[in-house]
Amino acid sequence: MNDRVNKLRDVTINLGHGGGGRAMRDLIEDVFVAAFDNPALAALEDQAVFPLAELARHGDRLAFTTDSYVVDPLFFPGGDIGALAVSGTVNDLAMSGARPLFLSCGMVIEEGLAVDTLRRVAASMQRVAIEAGVSIVTGDTKVVERGSADKLFINTAGIGIVPAGVNISARRAQVGDAVIVNGFLGDHGVAILIARQQLALQADVASDCGPLGSLVATMLGACDDIHCMRDATRGGMATVLNEFAVSSGVAIHIRETAIPVRDEVRGACEILGLDPLYLANEGKLIALVPARCAQRLLAAMRRHPAGRDAAIIGEVVALPAGIVVLQTEFGGQRIVDMLVGEQLPRIC
Amino acid sequence: MNDRVNKLRDVTINLGHGGGGRAMRDLIEDVFVAAFDNPALAALEDQAVFPLAELARHGDRLAFTTDSYVVDPLFFPGGDIGALAVSGTVNDLAMSGARPLFLSCGMVIEEGLAVDTLRRVAASMQRVAIEAGVSIVTGDTKVVERGSADKLFINTAGIGIVPAGVNISARRAQVGDAVIVNGFLGDHGVAILIARQQLALQADVASDCGPLGSLVATMLGACDDIHCMRDATRGGMATVLNEFAVSSGVAIHIRETAIPVRDEVRGACEILGLDPLYLANEGKLIALVPARCAQRLLAAMRRHPAGRDAAIIGEVVALPAGIVVLQTEFGGQRIVDMLVGEQLPRIC
Repeated sequence: MNDRVNKLRDVTINLGHGGGGRAMRDLIEDVFVAAFDNPALAALEDQAVFPLAELARHGDRLAFTTDSYVVDPLFFPGGDIGALAVSGTVNDLAMSGARPLFLSCGMVIEEGLAVDTLRRVAASMQRVAIEAGVSIVTGDTKVVERGSADKLFINTAGIGIVPAGVNISARRAQVGDAVIVNGFLGDHGVAILIARQQLALQADVASDCGPLGSLVATMLGACDDIHCMRDATRGGMATVLNEFAVSSGVAIHIRETAIPVRDEVRGACEILGLDPLYLANEGKLIALVPARCAQRLLAAMRRHPAGRDAAIIGEVVALPAGIVVLQTEFGGQRIVDMLVGEQLPRIC
Repeated sequence: MNDRVNKLRDVTINLGHGGGGRAMRDLIEDVFVAAFDNPALAALEDQAVFPLAELARHGDRLAFTTDSYVVDPLFFPGGDIGALAVSGTVNDLAMSGARPLFLSCGMVIEEGLAVDTLRRVAASMQRVAIEAGVSIVTGDTKVVERGSADKLFINTAGIGIVPAGVNISARRAQVGDAVIVNGFLGDHGVAILIARQQLALQADVASDCGPLGSLVATMLGACDDIHCMRDATRGGMATVLNEFAVSSGVAIHIRETAIPVRDEVRGACEILGLDPLYLANEGKLIALVPARCAQRLLAAMRRHPAGRDAAIIGEVVALPAGIVVLQTEFGGQRIVDMLVGEQLPRIC
């Protein structure tokens, strides 16, 4: 695509770039098609088309998911809205055990946004897409008047293929399952707070924003029956564990001393009265797996860059059904409820 | 789902409804799962999963598309943002000849929106989904602070299956092809203008917003080789014809007297200096088909409710390549270019 002539001469986005005509086509070709370079998108059809036979090489079921991203600010330590929009949707696919393959990209842009900002976001999306092994194959661009949106919102939907025999669901937790997390909790939430300058402290914490498909492939190779798996985004680990406990009708016990949290994150939480169990992550998954494969799985995860700090943090027990219990570092116990309202708005 | 207890007691949306915790879960269960009633969504997993073997019953290729909807106002004569969000994405799938099957739904909601407004939109989405034979199987909800979005933006992505042997593309126009449209142009654009009260006149025009999958199935039965097909949304018919002409390297000649436009729409255009060829439609398609099946196709379309006013409006010729030419009602000729900027912002 490097020999093409840039048609887009505008420095900022105006309403015409969402009008469906030549200005929009120039924007799409110059910014998105150039960044996401792939034949399906470059064809500029209104839909991407793939042979089912090719998809079937990866497994026997199709997984389909979507997320909208409204993170504020657009750029933050460790990532940006583009990296988030690819990682987040890739991760929702991967949590079913699916191999992520294709993403769509719907942009809602506020009039006046710098075209260079869009270019940076698109480049970031493509960087993470390549890392995750997915292609951005279809898209849409809308522009709204100044004041009718805050800079940029991105929706991505994703398609992946689940390998035969893999059956992961929030309803499959069983008594005796080990609870595994792939690393430090709360980095994304604290990184966003710092980027918003809502923190007086200058903690050096970057978002964990990143795709988990490769780690999940490694995990599937090490454990033939992962029961539950979900990424701990909004609502944090506490919310995911509660979803598993309620959906499966079991209790989940976790040990505070086993939960990986960076000192900087723990410090920020203490100052702000936040709980790292509820902080958002963008590259962390929680898995419930049979005890028989827990150690083998842990070892395999720790050999993967996205699982270096993985830890077994608890286990599934029978009662009280639907409840998550934390054994505190001082030997007490407390119930860890779902997040009720909002801890931090526009975290993703 | 009728025996369930309503958990959501709030009258308006607050930031907590996008927080990922219990308030969001209550909103999703009470409004979206209740409206879109289907097992994939009710499972509340982060992705919907379908056997490839079931998909393969409909054809041999998967089609994937997305659109974001930012229409202002949310409700207008003939439709609303919900009906639009389902019709628009269903139509993008149908234009490839695909049978539309599954939709995702990503909502970006402004804090303060009435929950009842969301319920009306969700009900409207489900009504059109049933009409179109699709299921809304996965979704996401984000809430942004008051003033950071304008009420409600919806993204839908869609999956469909293209029947074996169907091969529709903007690059396949051939000299001699007939140009067919399925009915009156410009209704949606004028209906939105009236709803915004930007028109002094009280024309009785409703949006044509509706799903075209069933009409396309009828068309595929009447013509075994539709070359090009696209719905004429933003940018109108003029833009679609230009895309065909450029992509296929042909000229397209259309006759003004043959183009179906309601008197009310023509009148509104004259008053406002708009051109019905550029007005947005949300239930209109343009097809280029071999002359040998044009009459049979036209007859079949006219027997379908979505094609009652179908018309053959022109033909494909060799030169000047990439150009659309209109033969005016007074016998002159003029070039019909693509829309350059924006005719009406936030039309869809």
